[in-house]
Amino acid sequence: MTHLSTELSDKLRAIFGDRFSTSPALREQHGRGESYHTAAMPDGVVFAEHTDEVAQTVRLCAAEGVPVIAFGAGTSLEGHLTAICGGISIDLSRMSLIVRVGAEDLDCTVEAGVTREQLNTHLRDKGLFFPIDPGANASIGGMAATRASGTNAVRYGTMRENVLSLTVVLPSGQVVRTGGRARKSSAGYDLTRLFIGSEGTLGIITEVTLRLYGIPETITAALCSFASVEQAVDTAIAVVQLGIPVARMELMDRGLIAAVNAYSNLTLKIEDTLAFEFHGSPAAVQEQVDMVAAIVDEHGGRDFEWANAAEDRNRLWKARHNAFYAVVSQRQNAKGWSSDVCVPVSELSDCILKTRALLQGCSVPAAILGHVGDGNYHVVFAVDPDNRAELDEVAAINKAMVLHALSVGGTSTGEHGIGTGKIDYLRREHGDAVDLMAVIKAAIDPMNIMNPGKILPE
Amino acid sequence: MTHLSTELSDKLRAIFGDRFSTSPALREQHGRGESYHTAAMPDGVVFAEHTDEVAQTVRLCAAEGVPVIAFGAGTSLEGHLTAICGGISIDLSRMSLIVRVGAEDLDCTVEAGVTREQLNTHLRDKGLFFPIDPGANASIGGMAATRASGTNAVRYGTMRENVLSLTVVLPSGQVVRTGGRARKSSAGYDLTRLFIGSEGTLGIITEVTLRLYGIPETITAALCSFASVEQAVDTAIAVVQLGIPVARMELMDRGLIAAVNAYSNLTLKIEDTLAFEFHGSPAAVQEQVDMVAAIVDEHGGRDFEWANAAEDRNRLWKARHNAFYAVVSQRQNAKGWSSDVCVPVSELSDCILKTRALLQGCSVPAAILGHVGDGNYHVVFAVDPDNRAELDEVAAINKAMVLHALSVGGTSTGEHGIGTGKIDYLRREHGDAVDLMAVIKAAIDPMNIMNPGKILPE
Repeated sequence: MTHLSTELSDKLRAIFGDRFSTSPALREQHGRGESYHTAAMPDGVVFAEHTDEVAQTVRLCAAEGVPVIAFGAGTSLEGHLTAICGGISIDLSRMSLIVRVGAEDLDCTVEAGVTREQLNTHLRDKGLFFPIDPGANASIGGMAATRASGTNAVRYGTMRENVLSLTVVLPSGQVVRTGGRARKSSAGYDLTRLFIGSEGTLGIITEVTLRLYGIPETITAALCSFASVEQAVDTAIAVVQLGIPVARMELMDRGLIAAVNAYSNLTLKIEDTLAFEFHGSPAAVQEQVDMVAAIVDEHGGRDFEWANAAEDRNRLWKARHNAFYAVVSQRQNAKGWSSDVCVPVSELSDCILKTRALLQGCSVPAAILGHVGDGNYHVVFAVDPDNRAELDEVAAINKAMVLHALSVGGTSTGEHGIGTGKIDYLRREHGDAVDLMAVIKAAIDPMNIMNPGKILPE
Repeated sequence: MTHLSTELSDKLRAIFGDRFSTSPALREQHGRGESYHTAAMPDGVVFAEHTDEVAQTVRLCAAEGVPVIAFGAGTSLEGHLTAICGGISIDLSRMSLIVRVGAEDLDCTVEAGVTREQLNTHLRDKGLFFPIDPGANASIGGMAATRASGTNAVRYGTMRENVLSLTVVLPSGQVVRTGGRARKSSAGYDLTRLFIGSEGTLGIITEVTLRLYGIPETITAALCSFASVEQAVDTAIAVVQLGIPVARMELMDRGLIAAVNAYSNLTLKIEDTLAFEFHGSPAAVQEQVDMVAAIVDEHGGRDFEWANAAEDRNRLWKARHNAFYAVVSQRQNAKGWSSDVCVPVSELSDCILKTRALLQGCSVPAAILGHVGDGNYHVVFAVDPDNRAELDEVAAINKAMVLHALSVGGTSTGEHGIGTGKIDYLRREHGDAVDLMAVIKAAIDPMNIMNPGKILPE
């Protein structure tokens, strides 16, 4: 465990005043995300307000070989924020400026601490929106760092497809921009994509230029229940394979619906459910709806329920976004363990059935949900983080689910990232390519000060 | 200039027999692309048939520090194939196996030497297609290596968005796979995107797993002429800004139309022209067409001409794909110089007008064309490669066009790559980020044997 030198503390205090803190409460809060992972406190927290301040902090830490960990909204699920080796947590939440909105070019530039809800609130009047929506109200910087996606990815892609360029503070304290505002470029290595998903291990993202979209003329949502998860998933697969451009297609199993009803005060029918959203012109939406309704019907779905009013839709998706919290709240003092895998769509039904079988007899509350249009699904468990036996039980289920996903060409994480939680699966997924990742890491961060202990196994 | 040691020659001959050649004609052919760049011959050519053979060749070359340059279809436009430091050209054109088509998952895996036309011919019966279509019948490996796109990118994205994973031979001869078949993943660094656009400077791509799409139920194309390029471009901008999901939207200026008519035996009206294609259900296509027709009308466009028959459409796009050859064929013994830039769409009209002004009085045939939906446009010049004054004249125009594109947030190349042709602009575009690219290059290819002298300025 690193401890701060008096010299470094004094320098940080001289620069940041009370925006540098070593209070145990603040450090504890910055050493954990939202999930079960054991927290490890950083030695201090800096609240940065500009890219230059991030760069200054990194330079000071680099001079002493002290780790730096970027902190956005604190909604990480895989232990990204754990200060395994101590160091300084750089809190970017005050970097919440929406720098520029280019309505004509459907793009914008924001500071890393801007949250997805803040951005969409800002954009609404302009008739624009940013579609990427992980469950939590995450920061845009954090979403870029974990290559996040969410419910709209089946139509709009993930952070990978929707970031045009980044401003990044490198481990040396140098500031670089990874690109401009062109929609596409063949000019040099794709540094933008290298930093997206690098989880703060190669640099700290301080500004993000994003693609935006016009708010669709018509938006309609529908809920549809099934007698089995299998029927629901097969319906989703058929929709994907026919290329129907649904904007959202979310699976919520009956366990999740029960949890969501309780948490969000809803009265959804407690059945395995698909929730759809359709975006487009009135005619295009109607056509999609007709096609999907026919597929649902063929697969034994029932009770197609519409949510045309914006208010109803918002309630539905708000409840869906809160699914993690809903499952966790089923049990007092529980923590959430949300695992996610992503598989080729043709394998999805079999994977989810195998996962359901794994959950039979599981001793803690658990629910399956997923962005099934992408082949991506999650299991959320409500665990007692102090109960070793429980954690072992969930770890075994998680392991079996991940290994099965890998065996069919899938990935150990579709959108949550590796952090520490999936680190043991990286080599199994990527084989010798992990050595190449390590070469890149060592070249860019030779002192290993950027979020050490994450992504790459020792 | 490197020369092959007898030892290396003997080893290559022992392995490859007459698939290893040092014939001057073959070496000359492998030392150039399709454009004006001065050829530089490699010292030998290996025709590889498997990933393992590529790896073997790279290992042998690495042992002696001999450069290796991957060769696909030879259609590079920016000097990527020039063997500046000699070495071995590894010709992948015989690696033309379509390894697997996953119709259910809308994906496939192909060897790097498969060309886009070969792939689409293979897919047609299955009701699938791969949309990325640079003008030339390029190889999929080459398209990945240059981050290529084409006429469909406005709807379907570029190689960046449509490659799921790669098999790559590293400079050590080690073979890695950069991912699996999941649509999205947050598992580790995005090696796939790092190799896409790396122009053979980090490794040699030998297999590519691609996204595919269902052939749309309805496809309609239309041509529309304008009294000025400005009107045509403003029309395109309006279509983009309204979010109409056109599949293709191509600008061809009147000079290009004349060249295309002559080369492809067509009788298109010699005016500044937009060519559209619409994909979707009959109703969706009709709706798009109606919206676009209204915009065209507002902007003074005329003579909306339909090409509903597949045959007419194919002739139109074939002619468009041959635009480069059409311009070059206007002059005997000429070579093509095709420059491309990409800018934010709001800047496109101004950029193209400035480019037209630059072309006033240009002493060689030149035409403007572009994937204007992306903000990407090209100027093709037919130059005499032995005429220094001409080359200087075109270089000056090119420079002015690139610098203007950069000054408005654009990129020096939307889809052709840096090669040697744009190398002088890389630092102006990316600033200190070029140093980071160099760090990555040095870490992965410490001996600088992979296509040396490309992308990164000295």
